[in-house]
Amino acid sequence: MSLVTGDFYSEAIGMYTEFTAILPEESITKKNKGKKYPTLYLLHGGLHDHTSMIRDTKLYKIIGEKFPEIVVIMPNCDFSFFTDYHGDYKYAYKFKSFICDELIEITRALFPLSHKREDTAIYGWSMGGFGAMTAGLNHPETYGYVGTQCGMVNMPWAVATRDFLKVKHSIMFGKDLKVKDTEYDFYYLIDQMINSDGVKPAIFHSRTEEDYLGKINEEFYEYCKELRMDYTTIKTLGIHGWGKDDAGLIGFIEWLSGRMKEEVK
Amino acid sequence: MSLVTGDFYSEAIGMYTEFTAILPEESITKKNKGKKYPTLYLLHGGLHDHTSMIRDTKLYKIIGEKFPEIVVIMPNCDFSFFTDYHGDYKYAYKFKSFICDELIEITRALFPLSHKREDTAIYGWSMGGFGAMTAGLNHPETYGYVGTQCGMVNMPWAVATRDFLKVKHSIMFGKDLKVKDTEYDFYYLIDQMINSDGVKPAIFHSRTEEDYLGKINEEFYEYCKELRMDYTTIKTLGIHGWGKDDAGLIGFIEWLSGRMKEEVK
Amino acid sequence: MSLVTGDFYSEAIGMYTEFTAILPEESITKKNKGKKYPTLYLLHGGLHDHTSMIRDTKLYKIIGEKFPEIVVIMPNCDFSFFTDYHGDYKYAYKFKSFICDELIEITRALFPLSHKREDTAIYGWSMGGFGAMTAGLNHPETYGYVGTQCGMVNMPWAVATRDFLKVKHSIMFGKDLKVKDTEYDFYYLIDQMINSDGVKPAIFHSRTEEDYLGKINEEFYEYCKELRMDYTTIKTLGIHGWGKDDAGLIGFIEWLSGRMKEEVK
Amino acid sequence: MSLVTGDFYSEAIGMYTEFTAILPEESITKKNKGKKYPTLYLLHGGLHDHTSMIRDTKLYKIIGEKFPEIVVIMPNCDFSFFTDYHGDYKYAYKFKSFICDELIEITRALFPLSHKREDTAIYGWSMGGFGAMTAGLNHPETYGYVGTQCGMVNMPWAVATRDFLKVKHSIMFGKDLKVKDTEYDFYYLIDQMINSDGVKPAIFHSRTEEDYLGKINEEFYEYCKELRMDYTTIKTLGIHGWGKDDAGLIGFIEWLSGRMKEEVK
Repeated sequence: MSLVTGDFYSEAIGMYTEFTAILPEESITKKNKGKKYPTLYLLHGGLHDHTSMIRDTKLYKIIGEKFPEIVVIMPNCDFSFFTDYHGDYKYAYKFKSFICDELIEITRALFPLSHKREDTAIYGWSMGGFGAMTAGLNHPETYGYVGTQCGMVNMPWAVATRDFLKVKHSIMFGKDLKVKDTEYDFYYLIDQMINSDGVKPAIFHSRTEEDYLGKINEEFYEYCKELRMDYTTIKTLGIHGWGKDDAGLIGFIEWLSGRMKEEVK
Repeated sequence: MSLVTGDFYSEAIGMYTEFTAILPEESITKKNKGKKYPTLYLLHGGLHDHTSMIRDTKLYKIIGEKFPEIVVIMPNCDFSFFTDYHGDYKYAYKFKSFICDELIEITRALFPLSHKREDTAIYGWSMGGFGAMTAGLNHPETYGYVGTQCGMVNMPWAVATRDFLKVKHSIMFGKDLKVKDTEYDFYYLIDQMINSDGVKPAIFHSRTEEDYLGKINEEFYEYCKELRMDYTTIKTLGIHGWGKDDAGLIGFIEWLSGRMKEEVK
Repeated sequence: MSLVTGDFYSEAIGMYTEFTAILPEESITKKNKGKKYPTLYLLHGGLHDHTSMIRDTKLYKIIGEKFPEIVVIMPNCDFSFFTDYHGDYKYAYKFKSFICDELIEITRALFPLSHKREDTAIYGWSMGGFGAMTAGLNHPETYGYVGTQCGMVNMPWAVATRDFLKVKHSIMFGKDLKVKDTEYDFYYLIDQMINSDGVKPAIFHSRTEEDYLGKINEEFYEYCKELRMDYTTIKTLGIHGWGKDDAGLIGFIEWLSGRMKEEVK
Repeated sequence: MSLVTGDFYSEAIGMYTEFTAILPEESITKKNKGKKYPTLYLLHGGLHDHTSMIRDTKLYKIIGEKFPEIVVIMPNCDFSFFTDYHGDYKYAYKFKSFICDELIEITRALFPLSHKREDTAIYGWSMGGFGAMTAGLNHPETYGYVGTQCGMVNMPWAVATRDFLKVKHSIMFGKDLKVKDTEYDFYYLIDQMINSDGVKPAIFHSRTEEDYLGKINEEFYEYCKELRMDYTTIKTLGIHGWGKDDAGLIGFIEWLSGRMKEEVK
């Protein structure tokens, strides 16, 4: 496979931004001339960047073994929580717009990516889990699959309880800190979704035994498992992270590979 | 020479941040075993990043020809203007602290850099010119040489006239937008400096014929040239940039090389 | 534009190999959804690598100004002269096969490149000029444009006179060092070409005033200018390199842009 | 920690060559101002490159958890087996000289590395295991620790039995293919070593259950375990590689950390 790192100017973020990508190897591309590849957008956690998944996990090897025909795109989104910042310089820091629109458009122009929702997934860890679910639940027309690994799955709770992030939260959500019943409230979004007629993404929810965000993930699990929706969950050993020996990441990639290939049939 | 790109976690910025560096080649290091190298911190402009100077100029070649024994460090500082953000999450976005303290400390720990002020310079283009002058005029104990290339040399003017940046300015300088007579007002800083007994950096001021920031640069030139201080200026062909065929950058590197080598004698 | 660096496994070279590429920016890709881009394969000189053109020239800026809709691919080919090595481990060091086949196939699979010969160019400096002309003259069905910048345009002369490279030449051309009237002899190839009915590449020949390879380039110029073929030449100030202030590189990009856009009409 | 990638010109290899390095993080460097760091030179396998260990293992995370104060240097050495090529262009392809001399000198000039043998280790996987043992057994004055992970530990056997590599072997060892009782024969080198009075490196030998090079590794183990030397071995689950879940790599880093810290006391 090909591991590439590059940058481009993002109008939404208002500056040059970096990305790392895994592209299929020749043995795949040779057999599939002119093919458009399925795509996984993979989002980093807070304090991390676009290179973190290559450094901290065996992502490259896992993709090679489990799903070598997928393209993985890892953008750099700072410690942004992937929201459009409030009250900021109007030409910048629109991270949600970046993830949901501009990144999709640019990467589909630069690489041979399928434009179909059943070929497009978004997943992330911790802060990236929040970003991935936000993108996927608000844009089911773009993403067929969405998932979270030890994710921040309850932002109303975070805003109410994590005082040390107060200033940051006000930049993310506005001075009134309203998150409940908005595009950043997953309970609300799922409630809307199951009552709508529109397309719905399949959801993958990966938890670990000793996650410090375990409580909100267990509550989210209790909520989701009863609903009539396409919901898959796993719980692996490990602290806040990708699961012991990357078990959560491996579980997700195996699930995604199975589901995307099923679609093909 | 060695061209390296990497990243590290910055406590001041609150996330992983990237840098690009030029390190001396073997022919230099062989002759100077155990030597600590002079250092140039080189700051990018707005909308640019740590790789811009490699892409947009012949920096690498110029260093090779004019000053191959210097280490050049180019940090990534977003569209930050190199200030410590006001009202922000307290663990993050302290770009001035990053440039003036943390970056110095980290790079001196990772590379064999001289700790002497007469071996340390900071220079930048446009927004980076503002950052470099802010760092150098406030910290003459760290930097012996400071300079600006088509720089934003009059921030009180910018705050008063560039309305589209109002929100950004309030993040940078606080809601009252006070810049005059502060650590970000170069006229004030220079006035303080020439009346102090402390060490003073040598200043290099590079202007171009058609810079859209030409007016404030010409005014700054008129101000500086009359003062009793170590001030050098050049004016080259070109628009807002590094000068036609990098003339401004070349002029600075030649001047810096001459001055640093003079110190050695 | 997007500047990316990555690697992939090359069967022809027998190992992982790196490349750097310039991809079009959003303003281009937005207007041209689904477009396949014209491509320039740009080859480095001896002792250099895939990053040299970014470091040593203003290529990135020149492309941005003169031809922002082209994709530039710069492979790393060691000090190989872009030949298939003789007497080597049979799974490796097939640099000519790499440039002429595998690289084309892989890059067209990974990026949205036009497959048309009138959208495909190959150019190189010094050793890379030898590689580019070898590729282009032997494969006019792939490349519509071929060129050389201060190139090694007379390999029979090199083999006969550059004794210090004798061992290297025997690896490149076999123990008998036969180059004349082979696929590595440009005089022979051009002679064949002008007498054939097949498609023919347009040739761009860039020379400098003080090139240490000036003699063979002037002789080649004298030979080419009299022939009925699509031949353009420029001579700029400068030593062995890209021309003073990149004049040779700029001349080529301007010519290529003009020619490729003419084709479109 | 800082993950950097760069390149420099190697006189021994005769071209620009790349490296990746892990440098200590601020929390380490702050406590140890002016410290010279212990160093691990880590060599890739055949068909791989300097980035492979970052992609294929959790090296970065393992170093962070087990030995964050070490610097890890990973050079790119092609499919070279880390030997000085025979019959080659005399200015190039001296990979053994590169590893044993030039790389040491350059990295010690560019980074704050300890020059002591008790702070210097070399390790490698497969082909890199051959390179690491070759370097360490021939240069005990440089390396205090040497090791091999699923390594090619018996080159006389390889030359005698691996016919498909015959041409490559003749480039590496000369036309007569003499390896036995030379600087590339580990049995011979160890025999010399235990009968000498000089300093001796500690040896770490990591094997896996299903390595296709298992036979020669078991034989080497049988040989070493009886000798009076500083020899440590582990055998983990896994095929030819770093051990299941990187067990071999983790075992080595834990051993090295313990041994180097013991030295300090």
